[in-house]
Amino acid sequence: MLDALFTFLDPAAILRGDDMAKWQSDWTHSYHSTPLAVVRPSNTMQVSDIVKWANTTGTAIVPVGGNTGLAGGTQNDGAVMISLDRMNQIDEIRPDARIAIVGAGVILSTLHDAVDAHDLIFPMTFGAKGSATIGGMLSTNAGGSNVLRYGNTRDLCLGIEAVLPNGEIINLMSELHKDNSGLNLKHLLIGAEGTLGLITRAVLKLSPKPRAYATAMVGAQTLGGGLTLLNTLQEATGGAVEAFEYMPQAYIKAHLDMFKTAKAPFDNPHPANFLIEVGAPAPHDCAIQSDGSIPVVTQLETSLAALLETNDIQDAVVAQNEAQRRAMWERREQAAEVVLTQGPVIQNDVAVPLDQMQHFLDRASATLAQVDPDATDISVAHVGDGNIHYTVSPSSNDAAHKDKIVEAIEDVVQQICGSFSAEHGIGISKRNSMKRRKDPVALATMKTIKQALDPNGIMNPGKVYPD
Amino acid sequence: MLDALFTFLDPAAILRGDDMAKWQSDWTHSYHSTPLAVVRPSNTMQVSDIVKWANTTGTAIVPVGGNTGLAGGTQNDGAVMISLDRMNQIDEIRPDARIAIVGAGVILSTLHDAVDAHDLIFPMTFGAKGSATIGGMLSTNAGGSNVLRYGNTRDLCLGIEAVLPNGEIINLMSELHKDNSGLNLKHLLIGAEGTLGLITRAVLKLSPKPRAYATAMVGAQTLGGGLTLLNTLQEATGGAVEAFEYMPQAYIKAHLDMFKTAKAPFDNPHPANFLIEVGAPAPHDCAIQSDGSIPVVTQLETSLAALLETNDIQDAVVAQNEAQRRAMWERREQAAEVVLTQGPVIQNDVAVPLDQMQHFLDRASATLAQVDPDATDISVAHVGDGNIHYTVSPSSNDAAHKDKIVEAIEDVVQQICGSFSAEHGIGISKRNSMKRRKDPVALATMKTIKQALDPNGIMNPGKVYPD
Repeated sequence: MLDALFTFLDPAAILRGDDMAKWQSDWTHSYHSTPLAVVRPSNTMQVSDIVKWANTTGTAIVPVGGNTGLAGGTQNDGAVMISLDRMNQIDEIRPDARIAIVGAGVILSTLHDAVDAHDLIFPMTFGAKGSATIGGMLSTNAGGSNVLRYGNTRDLCLGIEAVLPNGEIINLMSELHKDNSGLNLKHLLIGAEGTLGLITRAVLKLSPKPRAYATAMVGAQTLGGGLTLLNTLQEATGGAVEAFEYMPQAYIKAHLDMFKTAKAPFDNPHPANFLIEVGAPAPHDCAIQSDGSIPVVTQLETSLAALLETNDIQDAVVAQNEAQRRAMWERREQAAEVVLTQGPVIQNDVAVPLDQMQHFLDRASATLAQVDPDATDISVAHVGDGNIHYTVSPSSNDAAHKDKIVEAIEDVVQQICGSFSAEHGIGISKRNSMKRRKDPVALATMKTIKQALDPNGIMNPGKVYPD
Repeated sequence: MLDALFTFLDPAAILRGDDMAKWQSDWTHSYHSTPLAVVRPSNTMQVSDIVKWANTTGTAIVPVGGNTGLAGGTQNDGAVMISLDRMNQIDEIRPDARIAIVGAGVILSTLHDAVDAHDLIFPMTFGAKGSATIGGMLSTNAGGSNVLRYGNTRDLCLGIEAVLPNGEIINLMSELHKDNSGLNLKHLLIGAEGTLGLITRAVLKLSPKPRAYATAMVGAQTLGGGLTLLNTLQEATGGAVEAFEYMPQAYIKAHLDMFKTAKAPFDNPHPANFLIEVGAPAPHDCAIQSDGSIPVVTQLETSLAALLETNDIQDAVVAQNEAQRRAMWERREQAAEVVLTQGPVIQNDVAVPLDQMQHFLDRASATLAQVDPDATDISVAHVGDGNIHYTVSPSSNDAAHKDKIVEAIEDVVQQICGSFSAEHGIGISKRNSMKRRKDPVALATMKTIKQALDPNGIMNPGKVYPD
């Protein structure tokens, strides 16, 4: 059956048996696959030929990027997995126009390094940056820690090229900041988790590199005060806050337990801990003064000192050098390892309105205490996005029991108009939630579009849409 | 036939005959309509009932907002026009969460005033702000003069409610900054020009109000130097440039001819004129100093003085008070009146890559000189978006002749990977261009989606999609 593939792919592009090992389990080891083959095309035309073959033969196609997703989006049995890891060319970087044109297989940190040479940044970043690919990030509309300042992946993408379920190549490679020429198919394909087509290339927006960063850890009483703190700092800095991350004391402790060389952020623990970073984009914000100080750092120190005085916060440490800054970031970026690899857990990647975060935490904990008194919870959150990773260690790994917990937490989310899926996507892990929580008209509309564009159901079947 | 409407609408909501006069011609008087009736529902349920009736009876529905579009998007014969002007409630303004929840009939300037009371802005603005409605802006993904800083309308919208072609109400009223729960139907409906449904409500993002503005007119030799000037000022101000608008001397002259009380920006004319505005978001940027100066104004003056010295620009005037600032903005915002109401013209609302703007102008003028030596051209442009309103006064109003000019200009646009429609949309005016210029796979995909969601073709028929 696979013989047809050998007519247009070189043998090295078709992996079978043990050669597929790398793709048979995801990063969390929660999802396992037995694919028919893994194919690694070198260009868009080959992707088109593969998909045309799959559409004709009714073969399921499952795209895979860095395989660092958290929702089982690449799991499959008997499908052909398609990896674009060989399509990893950075075709152009145009500093004046502030764009990069890249293949879908480019790894995020590779792009970071390439644009750094031009004093620019591609601002999206998160823990898995060393393996996540641009194609995977676009397919899942990846979020991360500086969405607050720069937006989600879709906001950083001007144009895409993709192969549709019928194998045709759609050219939406716009380099433009305004392009109102019909339905926005770019935004439809971004975040579709490979169910409407395979993104093969992209035009990405670059930003000027901040000339200095002021980074701090702040200790406070509650998550709820974080929004006031954030709004205060946004006012003081003119909206230059790049990241505003929440970690509770339980997370700080779990992190110290796992990473023995790590240090506690404060001598005395605080219930709520925030990692705050402010970028200094303008020359006058970063020039070192005659007394050795850097204005953006001084500005953050002054703001935090005032908040300490009014007792809005309890503690604050500003990074004095890059090593201290890196340590602050590592503590936050290791969250997936700390939270997800410590035995069976229930991930609740929820988003709530900005002014409802503390309310959510209170209600969720109270609800959990009722449904499973012996369970524990731990959260990290992107405060500026209302995105809380509320992770539960249940007292039992029984599927029905776990589903009961998920349902109860989702009830809380729904009551405050939140989303059961903020940035991790649906994959297979949240299909039940989609069925229960998504607006039924929206769900029916999604299925109508899926059916219209992929009538044979070959693109990443069994994901996103509930049965 | 319309009797059914009277069973669920009050008589005042159904206009016929002379009462429809206001809706029978668009603002430019280029498009004229003879609708069957104009209906003005009061709530979403009524919109749903109207669309269900239309879908059952096969009646065409044409939505209309402020009727200030430039592409004939509301033109119709024998359709029921639906105006949501009575759905003009601002339901909520939540300053901490920085959102407003509004009905589609809210007029842009009304929203501006309402959020101003909270020291916030809804940043989208353009000449027609006194009549354009939120629903119309979302349906057309309106642009304007500060897209550079804040994005297009779609970027300022967190959630929508809409009535689909089958009359069902889709609830996508997310207040969230991250919400990856399936296909992004919000972005599909925004910019669809009412062909996939009627947007009835929206959740909009608000921004802190800049505490001061520094506004200047700059005279230079070419549009091309504008990008360097923009990037220089973005570096100097930390990305605080809110608007960067281009007007050629021909426009300045036409403006003075039309508005007799207006003044020339400079004593001596310059080929290229830029309106530049920088916002001061942070307290330290706007506090009046002991010498009476305002830092953001001083900063802009200093930057411009340096550019004058290096001869990168030839002239500069910084507004010294709000009246001078308003005069600078009026000159730019009156562009539609100056350019479009002076006899028959061909509008080319094109977008090109940022680093190709001067190249486009040179090539377009040279091309026009070949195709129609007696024609004249005039352009205004949003430099930060690569959006050029290249308007031609042809020597003859003959349709075939005008189409030849459009084709020639579009050839230039296509060769540099631009778009034939930047912010005005397709309506009926650009359907031929869609057919000729849009990627054929994209066009086929749009039609597939339109057919799947509106099989009876009732929603704004004859627009957007070429035959």
